[in-house]
Amino acid sequence: MAIRVGIVGGTGYTGVELLRLLARHPEVELKAITSRGDAGKLVSEMFPSLRGHVDLRFADPVEAGLEDCHVVFFATPNGIAMQQVPALLAAGVKVIDLAADFRLKDEAVWEKWYGMPHACPDILAEAVYGLPEVNRAQIRSARIVANPGCYPTAVQLGFIPLIEAGVIDSEGLIADAKSGVSGAGRKAEVHTLFAESSDNFKAYGVPGHRHLPEIRQGLSNVAGREIGLTFVPHLTPLIRGIHATLYGRLTKGCDLQALFEERYAYERFVDVLPAGSHPETRSVRASNTCRIAVHRPQGGDTVVVLSVIDNLVKGAAGQAVQNMNLMFGFDESCGLELVPVLP
Amino acid sequence: MAIRVGIVGGTGYTGVELLRLLARHPEVELKAITSRGDAGKLVSEMFPSLRGHVDLRFADPVEAGLEDCHVVFFATPNGIAMQQVPALLAAGVKVIDLAADFRLKDEAVWEKWYGMPHACPDILAEAVYGLPEVNRAQIRSARIVANPGCYPTAVQLGFIPLIEAGVIDSEGLIADAKSGVSGAGRKAEVHTLFAESSDNFKAYGVPGHRHLPEIRQGLSNVAGREIGLTFVPHLTPLIRGIHATLYGRLTKGCDLQALFEERYAYERFVDVLPAGSHPETRSVRASNTCRIAVHRPQGGDTVVVLSVIDNLVKGAAGQAVQNMNLMFGFDESCGLELVPVLP
Amino acid sequence: MAIRVGIVGGTGYTGVELLRLLARHPEVELKAITSRGDAGKLVSEMFPSLRGHVDLRFADPVEAGLEDCHVVFFATPNGIAMQQVPALLAAGVKVIDLAADFRLKDEAVWEKWYGMPHACPDILAEAVYGLPEVNRAQIRSARIVANPGCYPTAVQLGFIPLIEAGVIDSEGLIADAKSGVSGAGRKAEVHTLFAESSDNFKAYGVPGHRHLPEIRQGLSNVAGREIGLTFVPHLTPLIRGIHATLYGRLTKGCDLQALFEERYAYERFVDVLPAGSHPETRSVRASNTCRIAVHRPQGGDTVVVLSVIDNLVKGAAGQAVQNMNLMFGFDESCGLELVPVLP
Amino acid sequence: MAIRVGIVGGTGYTGVELLRLLARHPEVELKAITSRGDAGKLVSEMFPSLRGHVDLRFADPVEAGLEDCHVVFFATPNGIAMQQVPALLAAGVKVIDLAADFRLKDEAVWEKWYGMPHACPDILAEAVYGLPEVNRAQIRSARIVANPGCYPTAVQLGFIPLIEAGVIDSEGLIADAKSGVSGAGRKAEVHTLFAESSDNFKAYGVPGHRHLPEIRQGLSNVAGREIGLTFVPHLTPLIRGIHATLYGRLTKGCDLQALFEERYAYERFVDVLPAGSHPETRSVRASNTCRIAVHRPQGGDTVVVLSVIDNLVKGAAGQAVQNMNLMFGFDESCGLELVPVLP
Repeated sequence: MAIRVGIVGGTGYTGVELLRLLARHPEVELKAITSRGDAGKLVSEMFPSLRGHVDLRFADPVEAGLEDCHVVFFATPNGIAMQQVPALLAAGVKVIDLAADFRLKDEAVWEKWYGMPHACPDILAEAVYGLPEVNRAQIRSARIVANPGCYPTAVQLGFIPLIEAGVIDSEGLIADAKSGVSGAGRKAEVHTLFAESSDNFKAYGVPGHRHLPEIRQGLSNVAGREIGLTFVPHLTPLIRGIHATLYGRLTKGCDLQALFEERYAYERFVDVLPAGSHPETRSVRASNTCRIAVHRPQGGDTVVVLSVIDNLVKGAAGQAVQNMNLMFGFDESCGLELVPVLP
Repeated sequence: MAIRVGIVGGTGYTGVELLRLLARHPEVELKAITSRGDAGKLVSEMFPSLRGHVDLRFADPVEAGLEDCHVVFFATPNGIAMQQVPALLAAGVKVIDLAADFRLKDEAVWEKWYGMPHACPDILAEAVYGLPEVNRAQIRSARIVANPGCYPTAVQLGFIPLIEAGVIDSEGLIADAKSGVSGAGRKAEVHTLFAESSDNFKAYGVPGHRHLPEIRQGLSNVAGREIGLTFVPHLTPLIRGIHATLYGRLTKGCDLQALFEERYAYERFVDVLPAGSHPETRSVRASNTCRIAVHRPQGGDTVVVLSVIDNLVKGAAGQAVQNMNLMFGFDESCGLELVPVLP
Repeated sequence: MAIRVGIVGGTGYTGVELLRLLARHPEVELKAITSRGDAGKLVSEMFPSLRGHVDLRFADPVEAGLEDCHVVFFATPNGIAMQQVPALLAAGVKVIDLAADFRLKDEAVWEKWYGMPHACPDILAEAVYGLPEVNRAQIRSARIVANPGCYPTAVQLGFIPLIEAGVIDSEGLIADAKSGVSGAGRKAEVHTLFAESSDNFKAYGVPGHRHLPEIRQGLSNVAGREIGLTFVPHLTPLIRGIHATLYGRLTKGCDLQALFEERYAYERFVDVLPAGSHPETRSVRASNTCRIAVHRPQGGDTVVVLSVIDNLVKGAAGQAVQNMNLMFGFDESCGLELVPVLP
Repeated sequence: MAIRVGIVGGTGYTGVELLRLLARHPEVELKAITSRGDAGKLVSEMFPSLRGHVDLRFADPVEAGLEDCHVVFFATPNGIAMQQVPALLAAGVKVIDLAADFRLKDEAVWEKWYGMPHACPDILAEAVYGLPEVNRAQIRSARIVANPGCYPTAVQLGFIPLIEAGVIDSEGLIADAKSGVSGAGRKAEVHTLFAESSDNFKAYGVPGHRHLPEIRQGLSNVAGREIGLTFVPHLTPLIRGIHATLYGRLTKGCDLQALFEERYAYERFVDVLPAGSHPETRSVRASNTCRIAVHRPQGGDTVVVLSVIDNLVKGAAGQAVQNMNLMFGFDESCGLELVPVLP
């Protein structure tokens, strides 16, 4: 029997991507999708791509019956989920938050980067960071999962083998990451207009980006001590895709290719490419896969890792479904056997 | 038990799209993919998007064992299939040709537009034009199906209800069609380079395009007499997608919206949008659906039909799989329940 | 001695394009650029492309000293210019309005399409429609010029030779036009976000678009009687560029190529391509040129005209400068000798 | 009196960009453009953007009269210029090579990276590396200038102030660079097709790229000793533009903003942005400017420099014209006062 699923905030890109995936998930019954502003409207009227696949209407949050769901996904702006999660958990509903409300363990750090007080710090402590390749066991038994950010997913998966193996200087990590424009969300803003961001490339947030503390927390946990990281995100004219180019200084010799292949040998959604490869973002488009290649240019002591994901799938909705599969004991790849769309 | 499927010419866009669809088709066993130039190479080496989904290697055509397949798809340049089809048919293999070798019934017209003698005119006569919305019954029993061109699919589906109902002047049809660049194929050419075709828009082939006689043949069959058509294709900076804007002069009053809705009421892959709609190409991206809207601007006597498809799916590989489903008695939408990828 | 020039509304795309052109115009001194919201801010802070070329700050409209300018350009939303133009004219300032306030001669038609009462119908009557290829003499002596819309420029220049020569049926004209996204302006809106309009193509406004009455007025003036037009605009993933594909039914034989070449023989900014050509939008990118080709496909009685412009130059700011040159007796191409940027 | 200018290899992107710039250069008379394959063809037939601006025909190299020119630009593939330069120099013609034939001083290094013997190593020694911001004096008196590569221009201009001031560890430099697709040239290749490189992002050449030794040579000269550099180029879906993100470890305190502003205070084509800025590639589109911003994220010891150029202008044809201006005593910015095209 299918589980009942609710989505809070179904009008953004992570929301519509969740719908794309859940509409074909064999263990799921889509029960409610909320939107205060668009309550009553057919979801497929806003997203004609879903005609014939999703026949729900957007529901008002209070009338949506979320407490009758087995699991609720939050695809909302930061600061919304933390208002509603305590009541849902109390009602026995599991929660997967695709926003950042539960990603950082340190309340003070969270409040510094997100600029507001946290509404439920106790749940912050309980929440499991939903990167299955690191926290699979805890996710299985979690009531609430904080789904990782898009950049943090690509960056952490690329650095983890090196840090776990202790072969790089963890003080001077550099993550130069490039994201497609859908990462900025479906909000009316000037800088993400087609005529602004097409045929254009820029860095942003160099002084500090909210994904910096998230990555630092994750990699410090892996390292067992505070790591040092410079993180520079860029906006690139793709719809979907993140390409993280990662740099570290090798502190001891090792077979890098074997290291990566072994670390991810049993991971369904991490694909280590043959030595010498350069993964393309389109090779994972619309799929839940992260593809990784590792290089040691000119035989020097700098290791370069290339890591690509689809920011809306492995970087958001797909990873959320992967987490749901773990939380409910489904096959981890159920509903996620997506062949990337190329070209 | 799954049918054995072969693909001739697996290195182009229709080839890789066939692989994307067939890799997840529950009734299909992929048996062979041929490529003279790349024999021995892993398919997933050329198309890393298929890693984990397709583990075949490209096979030399003569060693591929195509005659042991139940069906062979030709995803080759024009003029190849007609050389090999007679032997395959004789061996009891069904054939679906995604190129143009069997699309035109009149041998002389074919030879004029394709600039070569036809290798098997008798099979030209036998071949069924694979537009299921028109020829479903014949396709079911066909040995060889000529899969329609991308433009002809979008244009014919848009005009058919009007012509069948006899409500427009069939002498002065205009089809202004816009195609994404993947329609030009995966060939190294200057004019389809990114730096040439990005941020650029142009018409081409205005004096005459090979899809003109194909559309004319199809619509004339529907009309029961020779129709008159001006067809202007354009290249637009999309990867995938065709948008056909169709113009006709109404010769009698009629409820256009009802006409279209009724004509396609039972068609799984044709979606008539509500009155007043403007279909977007992305609303069908990576799916087998054609979405159509019909307008009568300013209450005048010009009817405007907007018809969109993904040129690689409903305009090529998806329609080919739909035809295969019909030819083998599978559910028509088997393997084709694809939710469009948006954004 | 240079003329003093003011711009009202310098924060949109037509505004920044005017600045690009006027910054290098040898007869112009840029005096003021107004923006209520950004008064005091350096123009080059908003548009770093202008660093080193424009050192003005945005001025508050009331303090800008517009009445001391020789000419003021309005690059404002519709409905703004008509509020301020009477006072400027009274002060002896010439005006070029890049919005639509003065484009339609019939006040009732204007009010129907723009949904507001007109603030100065008498000036509506006086204003000269600024298409130099039609109204050059009147523009020279005009106090106020209504700069044509982008679609109307491309469409009218393509149809004019045919209508003037009386060789087509002017009742059944069809203009299928495609515009880059900058045509929608620099406004924060969802549908023009990169992730919405990239890799996507759609028609819009099929039931009725504001440029329809403008084109109809212009071509009816040329024809000497009411013409009949179906106008379908489309949004295409370009930053800049309009491609109009025009269809008409020939009513008498004529040498179409000679007709176009002769009509535009002395026009600096209209380039008739050799027979058989297909103009590309990028061939006019960032320049004030309209390129046109004329076809008669398959020798039938349908004439097809292809007309391309850069919507921000010949379709807006460039044509405005061309009008200014005429109004002040400068060489018509002064400041407009721009080589298109390709690739 | 204008100088006579020849271009060898006018059919690629650097060639057509040279034509765009030289066509409006007041001191230049375009004398000859050679192309073996297209001799006799109007340049404007291949590049309609040049209609009305360039009326030359492509000339056969042997008949072009290059030896009568004052200066000849080579916009050819690597390995061509070195065959012809000795004779031109002997004839008293100055040469600017936009390819790589004369960029590396060490013949052995050149031969290793370019895979062929060098045809004139003595001239290799004489050639001046044409980065005016470093070698202005030598360029003025040079007979032959090796125009820098696109990546090397953006990377060197970003690192130079830091290395000259000795404030970073020059052993561990990292240059993460992103280029638009025009950088790959106007060659028919699969990987730069629109359908391959649009909506896609990838690194390439991580094991070793030909611009690595060029950058290393330039920065080592500045440092006065061998520097250590990791260089990772990426292909991004822009037509034009390079964005270099540069990382270094600070070894002593300094006012980074002042350092950069002072270094480039008198450079017309290097624009240091205000502290906290993020330059966009489009802010230099179609212009000869390099814009740079410098950051010290989170107050750590990693300095991040962002450097953008138009790869076809400051990264190729524009810098070549700048070099020509120096070699002939014209104003350095003559013909290069280009306002960037935005949007």
